[in-house]
Amino acid sequence: MSYAALTEHFKRLSHLRHVEAMVSWDEATMMPTGGGPARGEALSTLRGLIHQHATRPDFADLFAAAVGEGSALSPWQTANLREMKREWLRAAALPNRLVEAMSRAESRSEQAWRHLRAKNDFAGFLPFFREVVALKREAAQALGQALSLSPYDALMDGFEPGFTAEKVRPLFARLRSFLPGFIAKALERQGAAGAPTPGPFPTEEQRALGLALMGKVGFDFNHGRLDTSHHPFCGGVPEDVRITTRYDQADFSKAMMGVLHETGHAKYEQNLPKEWRGQPVGAARGMAIHESQSLFLEMQVCRSRSFWAFAAPMVARAFPAAAHATPEAFASEALFLGMARVVPGYIRVNADEVTYPCHVILRFELELGLIDGSLRPEDVPEAWDVGMRDLLGLSTSGNDRDGCMQDVHWPAGLIGYFPSYTLGALTAAQLFQAALRALPDLRGQLSRGEFEPLDAWLRQHIWAQGSRIGTSELVEQATGKPLGTEDFEAHVAFRYLDRER
Amino acid sequence: MSYAALTEHFKRLSHLRHVEAMVSWDEATMMPTGGGPARGEALSTLRGLIHQHATRPDFADLFAAAVGEGSALSPWQTANLREMKREWLRAAALPNRLVEAMSRAESRSEQAWRHLRAKNDFAGFLPFFREVVALKREAAQALGQALSLSPYDALMDGFEPGFTAEKVRPLFARLRSFLPGFIAKALERQGAAGAPTPGPFPTEEQRALGLALMGKVGFDFNHGRLDTSHHPFCGGVPEDVRITTRYDQADFSKAMMGVLHETGHAKYEQNLPKEWRGQPVGAARGMAIHESQSLFLEMQVCRSRSFWAFAAPMVARAFPAAAHATPEAFASEALFLGMARVVPGYIRVNADEVTYPCHVILRFELELGLIDGSLRPEDVPEAWDVGMRDLLGLSTSGNDRDGCMQDVHWPAGLIGYFPSYTLGALTAAQLFQAALRALPDLRGQLSRGEFEPLDAWLRQHIWAQGSRIGTSELVEQATGKPLGTEDFEAHVAFRYLDRER
Repeated sequence: MSYAALTEHFKRLSHLRHVEAMVSWDEATMMPTGGGPARGEALSTLRGLIHQHATRPDFADLFAAAVGEGSALSPWQTANLREMKREWLRAAALPNRLVEAMSRAESRSEQAWRHLRAKNDFAGFLPFFREVVALKREAAQALGQALSLSPYDALMDGFEPGFTAEKVRPLFARLRSFLPGFIAKALERQGAAGAPTPGPFPTEEQRALGLALMGKVGFDFNHGRLDTSHHPFCGGVPEDVRITTRYDQADFSKAMMGVLHETGHAKYEQNLPKEWRGQPVGAARGMAIHESQSLFLEMQVCRSRSFWAFAAPMVARAFPAAAHATPEAFASEALFLGMARVVPGYIRVNADEVTYPCHVILRFELELGLIDGSLRPEDVPEAWDVGMRDLLGLSTSGNDRDGCMQDVHWPAGLIGYFPSYTLGALTAAQLFQAALRALPDLRGQLSRGEFEPLDAWLRQHIWAQGSRIGTSELVEQATGKPLGTEDFEAHVAFRYLDRER
Repeated sequence: MSYAALTEHFKRLSHLRHVEAMVSWDEATMMPTGGGPARGEALSTLRGLIHQHATRPDFADLFAAAVGEGSALSPWQTANLREMKREWLRAAALPNRLVEAMSRAESRSEQAWRHLRAKNDFAGFLPFFREVVALKREAAQALGQALSLSPYDALMDGFEPGFTAEKVRPLFARLRSFLPGFIAKALERQGAAGAPTPGPFPTEEQRALGLALMGKVGFDFNHGRLDTSHHPFCGGVPEDVRITTRYDQADFSKAMMGVLHETGHAKYEQNLPKEWRGQPVGAARGMAIHESQSLFLEMQVCRSRSFWAFAAPMVARAFPAAAHATPEAFASEALFLGMARVVPGYIRVNADEVTYPCHVILRFELELGLIDGSLRPEDVPEAWDVGMRDLLGLSTSGNDRDGCMQDVHWPAGLIGYFPSYTLGALTAAQLFQAALRALPDLRGQLSRGEFEPLDAWLRQHIWAQGSRIGTSELVEQATGKPLGTEDFEAHVAFRYLDRER
């Protein structure tokens, strides 16, 4: 049976991707710098091989024959066939040579970025960046032709199937008109409240707190671990999810909320349908849904007033010296206000949820230009500065480290990904409202550290669904309406203007 | 040109092996237990793929054509062609099905061994062990036919090309007759000297000492790292060597000497000829030479009286509490005697260098039986007990944890490897004598922590040679004579009877 043969091939592909995921994790967390060039070569060959397997010459025949088996397939199998075909079409659109060249260029560029960002050296980084953008444009062109999409949409489709710039624009336009006024109001409302919690916050104590919280909110340590990396991420495989964070000794909240964010990703992976492990239909639906799960846990749950009623004592215990010095700063109310503070700033990953979409909108607009050729790589620093001044009133002129060089995405060849963050934030807000309707005591449960009822709701509506249906359908089935901005707007108004009272 | 095409294929193979090495390292150091089954599947597919690439159908023609290019090749290229062909013949002897089945069985068996050893549960382990032995016998048979070797010799040839049971036997026979009497004399000579150093030895302090010593003796941290694993090993790739150790809070010397042992392996890898990276001729010569390098550093260098004149103050500084409590135990002489103590015991990896060959001889004899079928897996515990009583006067009856279950080798399918340890010990002793002739002030240099002259000698005679020539030739060129036991016997007499005075 062709369907059965295809599942066998995709299972083997998932094995190779398992290996790729672990070696990539190692590169970011464990590898000494000198290992970089050899690692880049090794990963490039592996990725070439994965691509070769994903574009086997017999796939065309197998897919053609599998269509005829349609009536014998269950709904999940049918969905699996659709997802397999989707992967194959995307892979087959790219020549092997290009895949290996991209892997090599992206590996070199990411490794160079690590030290050049620290030196604020955009000029030094430019040759690497140019090569990545040029190859990515070539790939976008090829993908676009194969999928009948514009080049940028073809890239976005790789992260978020079914979404296009055209679908994103009205949502982002609405946020662009809503946010500036809202940010001003929120800043006025918060005044001096939510000042940073005074330390010290030794790294080991922060790590212990992170691990304890991961356990409380349901991370399965038998199938995953926490490590340190330059840029936090969630990697690995559902059976062994690797999340990372980084520690700032002056501010425990960065690592703590970062860990909870990545734990949101991890719980999604760990709870994907076990019976479909290794098959495309068993994988996470897309990056917007993935980000919705991390932002659900971080923003909707763990920055809420309810959560801090539960978490404040844990935090105070985690940092005995600091809590002893200024006990009032470790009161639940003080910590909640610190977590719900709007601070327009340079760095996306440190941004609060209100200003965050501004960072994404900027990157979305610049990415579109990089791919359609209207923005040249060398002009990115200036465009970034203009955008940041427009969106957040901050100039990054001469400060590329905290400007266009701050993210690993472009150095690593991730173009078309950024919109997923804000689509995820909108989705998370909409999911939380739906969960509130289904679980009337949800806020009470969170304040007592009872996460199971909420997990059960998410498992049913999101996690157990894998990639059975499309993103829009998944959001609509779980929340009763198409994705919009209203619930996000209501959520930030509740938190930042009404203070969740 | 066929030779060029072959080097390209072998370069890509080295990339896949790079990936395999890193994922195997991860499995032993980082992976949570629950990740095991999926990891086993993934690695099995990867190994099958590596095997498939190592047995490409076009290799037969390429090798045939390359012979005709012989006159155009440099001596190193000729040696590379020889080593490529050697690898290919070994790989081609095994069907892909068997390679994947072995990988899967060995992964399952090693994972089961980890917890069953702790429970002293040989009966629980037996089904895994049986499967590994059965598959290994099948492989040995196939390899033996292809290489015109006996099944066991065919396995040994994979670790130590050119060696056979027939070549090993007279060396081991000589040791079997020499050691019992020597052990008795050494025990009498040492009396109560060299009592264990009293702690405490906190893990973090042990780790810091290990890292400091690695740096002193020339480990390149830009191309490697130190971690913790259940069974210490040296893995990774020459550009990124991963060594591991484990810590015993009651005895710092286990981790310290373990780290130095693995550092010996690591320095060999890190100093292999750079211009031949990724090609078979650039790889380490074989496991006997590899073990000679770890034992050279651990036994010849770092357990010498000279070395302890240098290292004692570092050790005292590393454990301030313990050194403050009993300063006399941290004097150079006391530490040297502690490191040069013969203690017949159950555990091979904890054995001193005098009793160590007894552990190896036992395993060699049992392995021969497992492969020729005269010893059944279920009879190993009893045979082990008999052998240990005979060789070292110790019974392991009812204590398989410290008997036949102590090593990772058999659970992981490594049969034919053990002789390399003792061949390595003999080689190390012979190399050290040759180095002493070349560097008359060697002992003085070691006592001052000057390792560069010795490294230069090793680099020239061993490290830079890669796999250019065979093991026997390499030993003979470096030391001026074929491998024997005399230098080892002289070495242990100097250390354990004369106390290096």
